[in-house]
Formats: sequence, C-alpha cells, structure tokens
Amino acid sequence: MTPSPSLAAAQSQGTNTLAQRYQRVRDATLAWCMDLQPEDTVVQSMPDASPVKWHLAHTTWFFEQFLLGRWQGYRPLHPPWNYLFNSYYQSVGPMHARPQRGLLTRPTLGEVIDYRRHVDQCMRDLLERAGADPELTPLLELGLNHEQQHQELLLTDVKHLFSLNPLKPVFRGRAPMAQEGRTVPLRFLHGREGIVQIGHAGEGFAFDNESPRHRTLLHAHAMANRCVTNAEYRAFVEDGGYRTATLWLSEGWDVVQREQWSGPLYWNEDLQGEFTLAGEREIDAHAPVCHVGFYEADAFARWSGARLPTEAEWESAAQDRAVAGHFADSGALHPLPAHGDPDAPAQLFGDVWEWTSSPYIAYPGYKPEAGALGEYNGKFMCGTWVLRGGSCATPAGHVRATYRNFFHPAARWQFSGIRLGKDA
Amino acid sequence: MTPSPSLAAAQSQGTNTLAQRYQRVRDATLAWCMDLQPEDTVVQSMPDASPVKWHLAHTTWFFEQFLLGRWQGYRPLHPPWNYLFNSYYQSVGPMHARPQRGLLTRPTLGEVIDYRRHVDQCMRDLLERAGADPELTPLLELGLNHEQQHQELLLTDVKHLFSLNPLKPVFRGRAPMAQEGRTVPLRFLHGREGIVQIGHAGEGFAFDNESPRHRTLLHAHAMANRCVTNAEYRAFVEDGGYRTATLWLSEGWDVVQREQWSGPLYWNEDLQGEFTLAGEREIDAHAPVCHVGFYEADAFARWSGARLPTEAEWESAAQDRAVAGHFADSGALHPLPAHGDPDAPAQLFGDVWEWTSSPYIAYPGYKPEAGALGEYNGKFMCGTWVLRGGSCATPAGHVRATYRNFFHPAARWQFSGIRLGKDA
Amino acid sequence: MTPSPSLAAAQSQGTNTLAQRYQRVRDATLAWCMDLQPEDTVVQSMPDASPVKWHLAHTTWFFEQFLLGRWQGYRPLHPPWNYLFNSYYQSVGPMHARPQRGLLTRPTLGEVIDYRRHVDQCMRDLLERAGADPELTPLLELGLNHEQQHQELLLTDVKHLFSLNPLKPVFRGRAPMAQEGRTVPLRFLHGREGIVQIGHAGEGFAFDNESPRHRTLLHAHAMANRCVTNAEYRAFVEDGGYRTATLWLSEGWDVVQREQWSGPLYWNEDLQGEFTLAGEREIDAHAPVCHVGFYEADAFARWSGARLPTEAEWESAAQDRAVAGHFADSGALHPLPAHGDPDAPAQLFGDVWEWTSSPYIAYPGYKPEAGALGEYNGKFMCGTWVLRGGSCATPAGHVRATYRNFFHPAARWQFSGIRLGKDA
Amino acid sequence: MTPSPSLAAAQSQGTNTLAQRYQRVRDATLAWCMDLQPEDTVVQSMPDASPVKWHLAHTTWFFEQFLLGRWQGYRPLHPPWNYLFNSYYQSVGPMHARPQRGLLTRPTLGEVIDYRRHVDQCMRDLLERAGADPELTPLLELGLNHEQQHQELLLTDVKHLFSLNPLKPVFRGRAPMAQEGRTVPLRFLHGREGIVQIGHAGEGFAFDNESPRHRTLLHAHAMANRCVTNAEYRAFVEDGGYRTATLWLSEGWDVVQREQWSGPLYWNEDLQGEFTLAGEREIDAHAPVCHVGFYEADAFARWSGARLPTEAEWESAAQDRAVAGHFADSGALHPLPAHGDPDAPAQLFGDVWEWTSSPYIAYPGYKPEAGALGEYNGKFMCGTWVLRGGSCATPAGHVRATYRNFFHPAARWQFSGIRLGKDA
Repeated sequence: MTPSPSLAAAQSQGTNTLAQRYQRVRDATLAWCMDLQPEDTVVQSMPDASPVKWHLAHTTWFFEQFLLGRWQGYRPLHPPWNYLFNSYYQSVGPMHARPQRGLLTRPTLGEVIDYRRHVDQCMRDLLERAGADPELTPLLELGLNHEQQHQELLLTDVKHLFSLNPLKPVFRGRAPMAQEGRTVPLRFLHGREGIVQIGHAGEGFAFDNESPRHRTLLHAHAMANRCVTNAEYRAFVEDGGYRTATLWLSEGWDVVQREQWSGPLYWNEDLQGEFTLAGEREIDAHAPVCHVGFYEADAFARWSGARLPTEAEWESAAQDRAVAGHFADSGALHPLPAHGDPDAPAQLFGDVWEWTSSPYIAYPGYKPEAGALGEYNGKFMCGTWVLRGGSCATPAGHVRATYRNFFHPAARWQFSGIRLGKDA
Repeated sequence: MTPSPSLAAAQSQGTNTLAQRYQRVRDATLAWCMDLQPEDTVVQSMPDASPVKWHLAHTTWFFEQFLLGRWQGYRPLHPPWNYLFNSYYQSVGPMHARPQRGLLTRPTLGEVIDYRRHVDQCMRDLLERAGADPELTPLLELGLNHEQQHQELLLTDVKHLFSLNPLKPVFRGRAPMAQEGRTVPLRFLHGREGIVQIGHAGEGFAFDNESPRHRTLLHAHAMANRCVTNAEYRAFVEDGGYRTATLWLSEGWDVVQREQWSGPLYWNEDLQGEFTLAGEREIDAHAPVCHVGFYEADAFARWSGARLPTEAEWESAAQDRAVAGHFADSGALHPLPAHGDPDAPAQLFGDVWEWTSSPYIAYPGYKPEAGALGEYNGKFMCGTWVLRGGSCATPAGHVRATYRNFFHPAARWQFSGIRLGKDA
Repeated sequence: MTPSPSLAAAQSQGTNTLAQRYQRVRDATLAWCMDLQPEDTVVQSMPDASPVKWHLAHTTWFFEQFLLGRWQGYRPLHPPWNYLFNSYYQSVGPMHARPQRGLLTRPTLGEVIDYRRHVDQCMRDLLERAGADPELTPLLELGLNHEQQHQELLLTDVKHLFSLNPLKPVFRGRAPMAQEGRTVPLRFLHGREGIVQIGHAGEGFAFDNESPRHRTLLHAHAMANRCVTNAEYRAFVEDGGYRTATLWLSEGWDVVQREQWSGPLYWNEDLQGEFTLAGEREIDAHAPVCHVGFYEADAFARWSGARLPTEAEWESAAQDRAVAGHFADSGALHPLPAHGDPDAPAQLFGDVWEWTSSPYIAYPGYKPEAGALGEYNGKFMCGTWVLRGGSCATPAGHVRATYRNFFHPAARWQFSGIRLGKDA
Repeated sequence: MTPSPSLAAAQSQGTNTLAQRYQRVRDATLAWCMDLQPEDTVVQSMPDASPVKWHLAHTTWFFEQFLLGRWQGYRPLHPPWNYLFNSYYQSVGPMHARPQRGLLTRPTLGEVIDYRRHVDQCMRDLLERAGADPELTPLLELGLNHEQQHQELLLTDVKHLFSLNPLKPVFRGRAPMAQEGRTVPLRFLHGREGIVQIGHAGEGFAFDNESPRHRTLLHAHAMANRCVTNAEYRAFVEDGGYRTATLWLSEGWDVVQREQWSGPLYWNEDLQGEFTLAGEREIDAHAPVCHVGFYEADAFARWSGARLPTEAEWESAAQDRAVAGHFADSGALHPLPAHGDPDAPAQLFGDVWEWTSSPYIAYPGYKPEAGALGEYNGKFMCGTWVLRGGSCATPAGHVRATYRNFFHPAARWQFSGIRLGKDA
C-alpha cells in the first residue's frame, strides 16, 4: 500500500520518538482501567457502546492486523480473535456481531492484557527493525489515533454503563477545579465571509475524512463566544421545550415521545442533579450542558431564535487558534465553565463536542484510503451529523481544527454540547 | 398571515384562471381513481404509504383548513375529520397516528367524494368572492401543488399495495410507447465551476424549501447525459453488487442484509421481469432503472467508479433548460429510454427522480413559512436525501429546476433512479 | 377418507334438509354484511382478526377444498385463490401470511360474492347428485359449523375494527330489550362430585376436539348461578384491581403493564360507557361483563376469593340443560342481565363465553381427524384456555354442552366473560 | 406467619443438622464457581438466564429477606441491594428489571461473596439462637431448596453463555464415565389405571405447588422404559422432522421457522457434535437427547406414533421408586445412557428433565403460601408445561417424585429431554 499524502506527512518524526509515543498512548489506555474491576470491563450497556475489555483487545488487534501483519514473520497470537475483535472491516474477514460484544466473557481481562503486552513487544521490535520504512509511520500514527479515539469511547461507555446501575458507581472521584465559578456572558462574534479553505493538508496526522483541503463558500454569519450552559438549557426545559412539538425536527419529536425524554441524558428529573464519572453531582449552572443529541441541540437553537453553526463556519473560526482547552488529561472528566475575554471564542477545543448543522458527508474530491483502511471512515457518511472540537474526555493532542467527529442525531452518551450560530 | 415573497409571486394570474386551474387539478386527482375499486382505496400497505381514500380526504382538508377556514363564515363540514385527515400539522391540533390510517374504513369513499364536492363548491364561492385578496392566491397555489404531490403519492402507494397482492393486479393497461427502443450512449458532460446561484426567487410558485436563492460554490465536475439504464444496473446485480459489502455505505449494507435485497424493489428474482402499474412486464434494458433507494444509487455509483451529483451540480445543469420530459400525463406511468443528442443532458425532468449526494437540509438563510404551514417542509430536514427532476408519475407542470424532493435513503417505492456524476 | 364416528353421526338427516340448511347458513353469513360498506370488508385491524371479505371467501374456499374438490369433475373457479384463502392447512399447500390478509384489496367484495354464488350453485348440484354419499354429510356439517364460527368472528372482528375508528361507527342500531333490568342475586350452586363423563359421543355434530367422551374426576365444588356483572367487575376496577400486582398471574401482570390496561377492552376511562356494535352506550350494571381476557377473569376471581371453574365442572353442570340462551339471532349483539330462578344456573349458553381454568389440551384418547382436517383443531392445543357456552354473537344452534372454544389468555375481542367457581 | 403443613413437616430434623446442611448447600453453590473467572459471572446471555453473580446474591438475599428479616435485630447489610436482588416478589417491594440483570457490574463478585459470608454468619447465629422456633425450619428448608434450584440454573445459564462465545470455553473438563456404552432397548411398560393419589403430603419438604395430595383418574396407558436417545432423535431430524409442518403444534412450527431451528439447542449442523459444559464433544448416540423444548418433544412423539406422558402418569410410575439416578454430583454434567433391566423404568430421576403433556396449573385445592412466599410458584401457573424427574445438573437430594418443574414450551437451555408415553 502506498501511504496517502496525509499519512505520509507524519513521517518526519524519528523512530525513537515513535516508540516512545507508542508506549505512552498504549499505557494511557490501560491507565483509564485502573479504577475498574474485571466485572466492569465485560458488559455492553447498549449496541452503540462496547465493553472496556473489547476496546482493549480491538485496539491491539488493529496494530496486529494493520501493522504487524504487513511486515514479514508475524503470526497472530490467537487467530480466532481476529473474528472477535475485528470491528467492521469487511475487507479483512467476517466478524462477531456488534450487539453481542458483551457476551464475550472470554478471553478474560487478564488474557487481553497479556495480548496487549505481546503485541506491544512485537511492535517495539517492529519499530526498531523497520522504523525507517516510510510506510510504517503513517500506519503507526493511524493506530495511535485510533487508540485515542477508543480511550474516549471507553470513558463514555463506562459512564453509560454505570449510569444504568441503581448503585450509581463512581468511576473516579473529582478534586475541586480551579476553573469553576461564573462563566462569561454570551456574545455572538462575526465570522469570515466568502470563499475560505477548510480541511486538512500538509504536515501532521489527519484522518482521511478531513481531506482534501478545499474551498468552500461562507455566508455572512456569527457564532457564540462559548457553549450553551446548563442554566441556559434548563431555562429551555422549564419553558416546556421537551413538550413543544413545533420546536423539534419531526424525527426528533418522535424520539422525544418514544423515549420519553425530558432533559439531557444524565440529568435527574428535578433538573438539579446529574450523573457524572464522579457519581451523582449537583448541576453546575455555569458549565456547558452536555449529553444532548443533535435533535436537542437543534431544538434548543430554534427556541433561542438561533441556529447551529455549519462545520465550515466552525472550522474557519477555529483554524487560527491554538488547540488549547480542557481535555481528558485535566482529570475532571466533566466540562467546566468558560472564562476569559468574552470577545474571543472560548471552549472551541475540549469541554464538549459541538454539534454542527452539517450532515457528515464526503468533502469534494474525497478519496478513502486504499484497502481495508478505506472502511475506517468513508462508509459511515450517511445518517450522522458532524461534531467539532473534542471534549473533556478527549486525550490532549488528539484533536485539531480540521477534525470531524460524527454521531447519529439521537446519540447522547458522548460529551456533546451546543454552540449557537446565526445569520449575520 | 403575510404571504412570503415566494408565494406572493403567484398572484399575477387572474381569478377565473385560478378557479379553472383549481378544478382541473382537483379533477385530475379523482381521475386517477377511476380504475380503482372502493376496496383499493382503504388499505395502507406500509407506514410510509397512505390509503387512496386518505389522500383524497387529506388534500381536501388542506383547502378547508388553510383556505376556507381563514375566510369568514366557513364551518368545517365534519369537525371530527380534522383529527382524521390532519397529516402532521402539530400547530393545528392533534391527529390520527400515521401508521393507523388504514384502519379508517369510515368515512367511506363515497362520503369522501361528497366531502370533496362540498369543499370544491365552497372553494368556487371563495374564489369568486375573495379571489382578488392578495393572501388568497399563494395559499391556493400551495394547496394545488400539495394536491399534485399527493397525486404522485397516490400512484406510488397504489403500486406498492398492488405489488403485495399475489394476484398482481393491473392498475391501468399500457399502450405501446413511441419512445421505446435503443437509448443514447452514456457520456459525461462538463458542468459549471465556481460560484453559481441556485434556489428559487422571483415569479412563480415554489415551496419554501427552495428558498432563498443563494450563491454556492461548484467544484470541477461532470454529469451523465442520461439516467442509468436497467441493463447497466443489471450488470451491477450480476456482478454481485448486492453481495459485496465494500460497495455499500455501512447502514445500506445493514438494510441489504436485513431486508434480503437482491435487486430493485419490483424486479423479479430472474432479473427479467418487473411489476409495474400495468402489471408484470419484461424489463426494458434501455429504460432507466427505477425503484432503487439512495443506498443502491450510491453503491452503483461506487461500483461504476463514479459518484452521485450534488443537488447544486444538478440544478446548475437544469436551470437553463425547458421543463420538458415524460410525466404522468403521458400515460405510460413507467420510465422510458432517453433519445436525442447524446451531448445534451436528457431526462433531467420526468422519468425518474434522481438521487443526489446531498442530504436534505436548509439552504443558507432559509426561513420556514410562518404559522402551521411552516411545518410543511422544515421539520423534515434530517435523515433524508434530495432527489431532483420529477418522474413519470409527477403531474406535468408540477416540477421545476429548483424543486427539492426528499426521501429516506432506504425508500424505494417512489419512481427513483440514478444519474451519475464525477469529479472533472 | 373414512369419516370419523363423530362426523358420521350427522348422516341421518335427508338430502333436501341438508340443501336447505346449507342455504340458510350461507345466507346468514351474507346477512351480517348488509350493514357494511365495501370499505369495511377489507381491513384487518390486528393479526388475530381477519377482514370480513376474507371470512366470506375463506368459508367458501372451505367447501370448494374439502367438499367440491373430493367429488369428480370440479375445478377451482380461481386456482390462485387457494393460496389466498387457505387459512392454515399446511397439508393442502402454502398460504398467504395471516397478518397480511388486509393487503388483499382484490378480489373485491363483489368478486367474492360471485365466488360464493358459484360455489353455492356447485354445492347444490353436489348435494342433489351425491347427497346420499355417507362421506358427504359429515363434511357438509363440518363446513356449516365452520361457517358459523366465522359468522361470530366476523362480528367480533368488525367490532374491533370499528372500535379503533375515532368516529365510532354503529354496526347495527339496537332496539330496547325485554330482558333488561335487575339481575338475579349471586349464589353458588353445588356441582357433582366423583367420576363423571364429559365429551361428545353419539348422534349429532361435534368437532373432533370434543371427543372422545371419557371419564373424569370431579372434586367437591360449586359454581355461580350467573355470570359476573359489569357492576361487580367495576367494583374490582375501582378497588385498584388493575394496579395490584399480587392479584395477577405473572404474565398477566406483564400484559397489564405493557398494554396499560385499566378495564375491559371496550370500556371508557370513566367506567361508565362502552363501545358496542350499536355504538357508544352506557354500561348496564346488571349485564355480564364482557371483553375480558383470561388474565382478567383469573385476577377477578382471585380478588373475589373464588376461582374459575374447570371445563369438566362446567360441562357436568351444563350437560343436562337445554341449550337455550341469548344468541346472535336475538339481535342485541350484546350480553343481557340474567333473570329467573336464582337457584338454577343461568346464562350457561349464550351472552358471554365463559373462561375456564382449563388449558386447552387434548382429551385422553383424542385422535385428530385424518388428513388435512386434522389440522382444524389439534395443532392449536398449546397456549390457549378453554371457554364454554357460546355468546350473544354465536349463531343459535351452533353451540352445545361439549363445545370447546379456546383463545389466548390475553385475547379480549371475543364476547368473553366470567363465571365464578369454588371448592366446596 | 404460620408455616403451612408442607413446610412444617421439615421440622423434625435437629438444629445442628440444619446448620450443617445450610453450610453444605451454601458451599456447594460457591464450589460451582471455582472454574469461573469474575468476567464469567457478570453477563446475562438472554432474558431467561441470569448472571452467576446475580444467582449468588439473590439466593443470599432470599435468606436475608425471608429469614433474617423476620427475627429481631437484623438490618440488611446493603439496603439498596434489596432492589437489585429481589427476583419477582412484588409484595416485598419494587425490583430491578429482569432483562437488565447483566448491567450490574457492581457489586463485584468479591463484594457478593463478602455478602454471602456476612449472611452465612448471621444465619449461623440465627440457627443457634432460634433453631427451635417451629417457624424457622420450614423457611430454612425453603431457602435451601431455593438455593439448589439456583445451583442448577447457574449451570444451565453458564452453558448458554459459553455456547454463544465463538471460542467455546470449557466449564469443566470431563473424565470418562463408567456408565457409557450401549443403552437398553426401548420398551413400553404398562402403568396404573383408575383413581390414584398424586401430590405431596406428610413428612419432608415440598414446594407449595406439589400440594395438596389428591385423587386423580388415570386412563389405560404405558410409558417408555427410558428416555429418547440421541440416535433416535437424530433419526427424526434426518427424516425431515424440522421441515414437516404437520408434525408440530402451530405455535411450535412458528418458532421453528422464526428461529430457524434444525436440531436440539447445542447440536452442530452436522448432527455429529454438540456443545457441552466440557466443550465441544461428539454426540453419544446412546445417551438421552437433551436441550429440546416441549414443542420438539411433542413433535418427536407425534412422529413416533406416541405421545408424552401426563404428569400424573409419570408420578404414579415414579412414586414407589427410589430417587436414584445421575445428578449433578456425579460430575459428568451431561446425561448418560440408561442401563439395567429393560422391564423396569430407568432414568426417571436425573439425566434429563422429562417434558410431560401437562400444562402447569394448580392442583385441585391448591393454596399458595401466605404472604410474599405465595409468589414463589403460584403466579407462574400459566403458559408453561410440567417437567419431571430432575437432570444431570440437579443437586442430588433436591428432587422427588412429586416435584413439578415448569418451563415455557420453547425453552431449551435446561437439560430437558423426552420420555414417550402412549394409550394402552
């Protein structure tokens, strides 16, 4: 396979660094499991989620399948596991049905950790032996970014699982955060107009769905300086937002009725408390609302007399800014209030993924990766909506201005929130 | 209510003409029912479809609700019918659940036809009395275009219903068509590049979702000179198209597996015959393939090394051309082969609705109609894809270059087909 | 096929009489359709119910398949209709799926009535020609009893269909009944004890599931002198019957919760009105409660400190009594209060089918009919419960003391009610 | 609560013995878990099954709720666990939904084992203090028999879980069995006729559903000397048993089609191998077929020209025989061929539960236990069928001639098999 330009770009970094980065990312995944019991790692709480143990094994299989398997002399440690831990790569072979991942009590957590160790050792050997191979680096980068995506999913999947347990377990207790307190007042900031460039090009890793960099036309518009807060969202709920059909997209209203939604996913009925990775907590009025789906983001925007930004509007605002924010590494694992200059956009990165008004489709001229890795993104370009900017569960360094996340409009278990936009 | 500019545009036509047009459109609806038995008009073959009798009553209710009801002195003929025949206008009141429309054996067909007569008489009175009212004309235009949409749905819903009857009833026998025979060879024609204008503005009726007219950026591209034929699509099927996961969007592949699709909706297993409104017929190799969903259109395009056009590409190609083609009035009720100059686009209008690669969302600056009619289009802008150009079941005069139809990606019971596009 | 003893018994009646009886039963079926519109005859309101038109055709097919088809020279009028109107006789060939009977708008009602006329003419010819054939009579009896069963189903299916229409159509208006007024006080009457005989033997028609006549052991018991009234059942509802889990069988409670039951099928929320074949009416406190399922009958009995009678207890009480009562022919099409001597059992026949505590299984020594007719009853001996005595929708003359009706425990659309029993 | 006669009967045994029995039964439960990993104990493979961890906690809760809670001074160790581990006792309070038992990763296995230890200590104290209390013994007996039932369910639930893992884990390896080899030839043995007594009375523990002992009438009949073997059942499969509609009850045939059954639950497609608690093994032609449901047992019997025995026939044959057979304690955890005198009934106890033709309903005069324990059995007397005799997964000493097990007719994950009966 000839690496695509976007992947090849990553090759400038030296081998030693790569081996170190590999180990750091892999260790970080395991570190998230330190507060879990083996029992916590087995269960699949819904078809959209996966067991922690499955995440640990699947990310390992990814390196085995797409890296170790391409260089001579490697044999899979457990050939039957290809079937178990292939997520959705039809080109590579058949796979265990997604909704049944939670039935796999074996291999055990211990066996999966041994598998990780074995593959890590082989990867170290490979990096030593073939680190200079120009094909290797981009695949390694892909594997590490893939692993980071699963680190975030691991957290959101555990949160969902724990939320369904009447004992409301605590994943990790939370220290008081410096950033708490009053947030900045809401303002709309004018955005660029006319033809701009978005999408990835040049140095640095990016997924194929961020390419090619291309021109797009922005109409006159403005975007909020920060995310919608819990207080603002609570006003919507208290104003009967979840009981007013005309605020909603038709399919969203169907979901509200069928699922009996009356607030964000983890809010209590009283609108005062919510379930977090630190257990039940009081809702912070100043923090960004999270665990809302696209349907809710869209209905809230309509109620506000605003709209959601397009992904191009968002990216044009973010592309000149430092990728700084409140990510998983900060330890709060929950979004925090925005602070600072109200005339500069805050929270673009970190805190909550921001729903855009853009359906997730291919960029003009998009070409999926060749081979099985072409299945990574392209085949999901239907029925989902783009989210931007990363969240408090995203590993620092994983996200960038061109990054396109995507989920179904009813999905709420990610740390997803709302930034308002409007026509200027 | 102040009429929106797009509706107000329709007011130049005189009252007499309007009354005549009203009667012509209303009569055309009933004319389609002449070959049906009362029994055929009651049944709902799936939640997406409606009974013919329901179409007849709902379109009448629309005039009663949105026209007669706004001018003084009118009382609904049967107030409880508001509940039965309100389709989805939450602002107007509660409604019968859509999947249960087929339970309404009463009112009978005869009673519904009496209802139509009553409303038609009141409408004639209204047009005589208030025809000069500038608010009236745009609403009348909307009602008539609404009625025409249901004329097409009536045909596709009857076709679906009859297809499920093992007796394979004939809706209307078909005379030999002059246009049959060899189609033109496939060519790709270059499209415009750069900023173009699309969307509706100015004179003539359009739905709110076609507005506002706005600038959009076209990248270099080409578009096929005609629709994909049955022969071309059969080659895809015979090449294992429906058994090759990597050709499909992930959700499309799920549907193929779950519904066990192996060809277009009404094709026989042997790929030689198909069910039509004239009963079982041999598939015409040269006619456009129809009754394929977006998933199939997309998979076929991928198999062809091409893609679907965007709606902007399609509209920029269509906007200078006469709205001529093979519509319902021709009587074939089935698409026909393209003829003529291979270097000019054929079949842009009529024959089959053409799936585009564009999700159905609001245009920049879109504002729904005020009031209940704002529910007509806006709340469906999620989860569906745009189709363009009308079909052999569309009433002549109903469609235009800016017209945006939309259906779910798995929907196949409309006369929907494929035109290929590609990057230039 | 050699006729079974139970069927052969019917042969003593002369041919002329048979032809007359045939015509009377067939005419009675059509007579029930006189108040219906063609539209009413097409729709299937739930999988358990069938369209009226289907009943008319299926009963006709039954004669064609099991009588005309066995004597020389007959060819089915419409061979494809075998597939459409075979209900469940696997031995005879494949069949249209039951839940899709409502999709068959064709053949039309008129065509089905023509089919009936054709088969009636052929049946008259057959009876004239072969009426003395000892095989013919029992099959004819079976066909006529089968037709009578469908007469009752036609009424209950229309009632269900109309109940789902917000217009609440009237099937047939109702004249005041002489029998209304205060019912007799409730008493328990002692039943027989020890070994008794139940089941059919000897002269007269019976279904195979009523055979063989056999000994069974009755324990000391008593049975109520009449059915449970609406007033008595309303007391159960008002006492929180539908909100008290411990009164219910576990699966019954699941249904109560899932379906949100709060009273008999056709009762209004206010417990004052109910839907009947004569439209909405006030509930008659003295009439038997009806449209309750086995789960409700069982819960009511538990709440009453009683139980349901076994089918053997019921039959031993009924077997010496005249088959007199309030059947469909009386025209009320709704149960009426019991009158007369409180020390004699009332309402054993007619008014409402009475749920017993007996699961519907084979009698000791049961042998199904040979051939396809063995599928008539035997294969349903699982999951249903026995009801006895006929209802106000049963044709007079159709029922007898040995008659075993059976429905699923959640089924409520039959005229099914409750008679209490208890240990003595 | 006054203990019922059946429970009171158990009081003759001394306190010391009771404490010892308590410990033995409780230890036996944990012993079955020794080959499991924590991960194996969390997952619920289907709504009918429960996680091992849940079994461990629920049986403990049972002692806490129904014994410790009734004697002074006890406080539940973890009050919120009442909600989690109450199975279905509505009288006691609300409970976690059954299909969501597999979401409870907390409490962990270790915490559950601590809970067991705590309750065991309290139970020892209670037995020492109040062992002479005549109310205590019958409740203790009930608790221990309850625990034994869950021991069997634990095994069948683990088997089901492991069977769904493509790795086909081994629960416990299996030593060669002395009893293997050729089975005895099939013979039918005449049973008693006339009035017999069945049901429990007198000394010794029994569940309330085995009471009262009562007279019942047996018709002339015979019963097979042993269970149906795998070879015999394979002949049925190879004869097209699963493709012949007329062999099946109607609802059974629906299940065969819907679930695509083609053999017993754990058989391979090739009819040669099967999944066992010792992993994949060759099917032993001489061993009893197991993991068939009632529908299959009934269809096999029909194909054989026989029928299933009634529960009264079975009990009258078993009531004079020693409760000897091949139970869980033998270690094979799989049924074994019958040996010995072909004129004596073999395998009545142990090996496989035997489906009878008797729906599970109350015996004449049945009274559920007073209070919450009345929910133990009575509310399930609907929709299930009686099985008799225990299986190779039943703890020795748990079963007796009067014991009534019951499952839905489609249930196959128990060790359930077939003994044929017939009319004499």
